[in-house]
Amino acid sequence: MLDFTFHVPTRIVFGAGRLEELGRLPLPGVKPLVVVGAGGSMRRHGHLDRVLALLRQNGCEPMLFERVRPNPSLVHVDEGACVARANGCDFIVGLGGGSPIDAAKAIALAAANGGSYWDYIQSGTGGRRTPQHPALPVVAIPTTAGTGTEADPWTVVTRDETQEKIGWGNDSTYPVLSIVDPALTITVPPRITAMTGMDAFFHAVEAYLSLSRQPSSDLLALEAVSLLAQFLPQAVRQGDSVEVRSMVSWASTAAGLCESLSSCIAHHSMEHALSAYHPDLPHGAGLVMLSLPFFEVMARVQPKRCADLAATMGMPLHGLPPAQQGMAFVEGLRLLIRAVGLDDLRLADHGITAAEIPALAKNARETMGALFPLTPVDLRPEDVEAIFAKALAGPTA
Amino acid sequence: MLDFTFHVPTRIVFGAGRLEELGRLPLPGVKPLVVVGAGGSMRRHGHLDRVLALLRQNGCEPMLFERVRPNPSLVHVDEGACVARANGCDFIVGLGGGSPIDAAKAIALAAANGGSYWDYIQSGTGGRRTPQHPALPVVAIPTTAGTGTEADPWTVVTRDETQEKIGWGNDSTYPVLSIVDPALTITVPPRITAMTGMDAFFHAVEAYLSLSRQPSSDLLALEAVSLLAQFLPQAVRQGDSVEVRSMVSWASTAAGLCESLSSCIAHHSMEHALSAYHPDLPHGAGLVMLSLPFFEVMARVQPKRCADLAATMGMPLHGLPPAQQGMAFVEGLRLLIRAVGLDDLRLADHGITAAEIPALAKNARETMGALFPLTPVDLRPEDVEAIFAKALAGPTA
Repeated sequence: MLDFTFHVPTRIVFGAGRLEELGRLPLPGVKPLVVVGAGGSMRRHGHLDRVLALLRQNGCEPMLFERVRPNPSLVHVDEGACVARANGCDFIVGLGGGSPIDAAKAIALAAANGGSYWDYIQSGTGGRRTPQHPALPVVAIPTTAGTGTEADPWTVVTRDETQEKIGWGNDSTYPVLSIVDPALTITVPPRITAMTGMDAFFHAVEAYLSLSRQPSSDLLALEAVSLLAQFLPQAVRQGDSVEVRSMVSWASTAAGLCESLSSCIAHHSMEHALSAYHPDLPHGAGLVMLSLPFFEVMARVQPKRCADLAATMGMPLHGLPPAQQGMAFVEGLRLLIRAVGLDDLRLADHGITAAEIPALAKNARETMGALFPLTPVDLRPEDVEAIFAKALAGPTA
Repeated sequence: MLDFTFHVPTRIVFGAGRLEELGRLPLPGVKPLVVVGAGGSMRRHGHLDRVLALLRQNGCEPMLFERVRPNPSLVHVDEGACVARANGCDFIVGLGGGSPIDAAKAIALAAANGGSYWDYIQSGTGGRRTPQHPALPVVAIPTTAGTGTEADPWTVVTRDETQEKIGWGNDSTYPVLSIVDPALTITVPPRITAMTGMDAFFHAVEAYLSLSRQPSSDLLALEAVSLLAQFLPQAVRQGDSVEVRSMVSWASTAAGLCESLSSCIAHHSMEHALSAYHPDLPHGAGLVMLSLPFFEVMARVQPKRCADLAATMGMPLHGLPPAQQGMAFVEGLRLLIRAVGLDDLRLADHGITAAEIPALAKNARETMGALFPLTPVDLRPEDVEAIFAKALAGPTA
C-alpha cells in the first residue's frame, strides 16, 4: 500500500546560462559567505569572480571562504562557521562540486547554532545534540554534475582523526535556492565528469532499490539511469556539448531528488568507509570500485527491480529466466563503467589492502549504519567484508 | 534545451490512516481556522470531529468556518478572512474537496494582507495589488481525489456578480503541510469519484501538453494518466477498496504536482467560464463535457505527445500513421469517460445554450487568459467558440 512523505522545499533554477539570475533573484540575505574549494579551479575558470560580481549586483556584500578540500574536513567546516559568525554572515553560498556545497550546508548549521558541527552528528563519535536553530539559508551553485547535493539536505563531512565520513542533514539544510547551470560543467575534465556522473548513477540506482523508495523517486531514478546510460559516455567524450551536459546535469539533479525522496543504501556506507581511511580517493571512484560485487548481491535479492534498471539502460532481457534478469543490470553497469573509461580503477592502486577490510566493514556500519536497514537484504558483517574482498580482487575475479 | 524551475515546498504526508499524524506533527501555529464546505458532509462522515480532536490533541485551539460552497465564492472567502483576523488565527486548515482547500488558501492570503481577496487578483476585474505579506500557513486535508490543490499553490475563487472564476496563487499559498489519507475518500459517492478523478486526469494531460512542461512534470503526468486509466473505473465501481483509492489519490496528488511544475492549458480556462456562469455545474463535469472537441484539436497539433498519452492509457497505436496516433488518445478519453459512467453528461442538461457561447469564449480569455499562451496552439476566439459549439452539440456530433 502506498505510504510516503514527499518534501523537497528547494527552489531549483535549471538551465544553461541561468547563473545570470543570481544577479536578480530574491536572495535570503545581504552578507553571504561564499564557500569554494581550496584547489583554485573556481578562480581559474572565472566562476568565482562571476558569482561575486552577480552577488554584488544583487545588493550583497560577499565574503570568501576558500579552504574546502575534496571530502571536506570537519576542521575547515568549523573554521568556516567561525568566519561566518565573526562577520555576521546571513547566508552561505556553496560554489563548486559536492565538497564546497556540502561544506556550505554544514557551515550554515554550525554558524547558526554555535559549537562544532560535529556536536550535531548523530552517529559514530558525533555529539548527538539537537540543533536549536535552523541552519543559515544556503544557496547552492554546482559546477559538476553528480552529487545531487543541490536537491537534497545531505552534507557529508569527514572527521580526520577518527576516520569517520558521515552524512547528515535536516529540513533546514536543504538549499533555499539551487542554480543548476549546465554550462558551468563544460570545463570539467573527462575523468572527473565520469566519476561524478557515476556518483549520480548510483544515487538513482540505490534510491530505486532502497526500502524507502516511493513512486516519485522511482520515476526520477529511472529517468536518471536512462539519461546517464545514454549521455554520460558522450559527456566524457565530447564535454563541450551544452546539450549533452544539460542531460547529465538534469540526471544528477533528478538523482539528488531521489536522495531526498528515497535514500542511498549500504553501497554508499561502504564507500564512506573507504574514503574516511583514504581521503584522497574520489567518492565516485570508490563507488565504482565497490559496485560490481555489491550489485551482484542486489541482483540476486532484487531480480525484478534490477531487471527494471537493466531494461532502462537498454540491456536485452528477452529469453532470460526472471531470476537471472537482475544480472543484466550488473552487466549493463560493467559496460557503462567501461564506456566512461573507469574500468582501469583498482582499489589496490589507491593503497587499500586486505588487512584493512575488517576495519572498513566495521566503519561502514558505525558511521553510516542508518543505510543498512534501508538496503533490501540484511548484510551481515561477513557479507560486507566479502564484498570489500571481491572488490579488492578486481573486476575479473 | 532543458530549462525549467522546480519548486514545490509543500510537505506531503501520504498514506491510508496517516490523518492520525495531525495529532503529533509540528504545526505552524496554535489557533487554526478550520475551513469546510457548507454541505455538512464533513460532519456526517465524522471527518470534522476527528480533525478538531486531533488539532486539540496537538495543542491547538481550533475555530470553525463552515460556509464554503462548491466553486467557492469571493463573499465567503472575504467573510472567512474577517473571521480569521478577528480571532487572531495563526494558520488555516482546509478540510474537504477542492473548494474548502482553495478557500482556505484564499482566506489565508486575505487574512494576512487585509482588504478583499479580490484586491490581489491579477486578471479580469481583480484589483491587481501585490500582497505585502505572505499568506498565513495553510494545512490541506483533502477528502476527495482530484483537485490536486494539496500539491499546488492555486486557489480558484468565483466572483458571482461579475461571473468570474479565477485561479491565483503565489509561493506562500502552497500548503505547508498536506495530509493525503486515501481512506478519507472511501465515502465519496461513485459519481463524485468519477468527476473529481477526471479533473485529476485533465490536470495531468494538460500539464503534459503545456508549453510550460518540464521533465519531472512529464514523468508525473504519465504516471497519473496511467494510474487513472487503470484505477479510476475501479474506484467508481468498488469505492471501498483502500488500495484502489490509494492509487487514485496518488494520481491526483501527482497531477497536482504537475500543476505546480507545469500548468493547465486553455481547456481549464474554458471550463472556468462555464462554471462562472453556471456555479452549480461541477468542475469535473464541465471539463468532461468540453474535453472531446478540445483534445481533438490538440491531437491534430500535438500528435506525438497525444500518442504518448494514448500509449500510457494502453491504447493500441500499432499500424496507425504517426499523424493519426494522437487521435488514439481522444478515443482512449472517450472510453475512459464511458468507463467511469460520465458519458451521459450533456451541456444542454445544465442549461447552457448556444446564445451564451460568445460570452463564454470572451470570459475564458479575460479571466483565465494566462493559460492560452501555454496551450500548444494559438486558439483564436472563433476556435474557442467552435469548441464550445461542438461540445454543446454533444459527443455524437
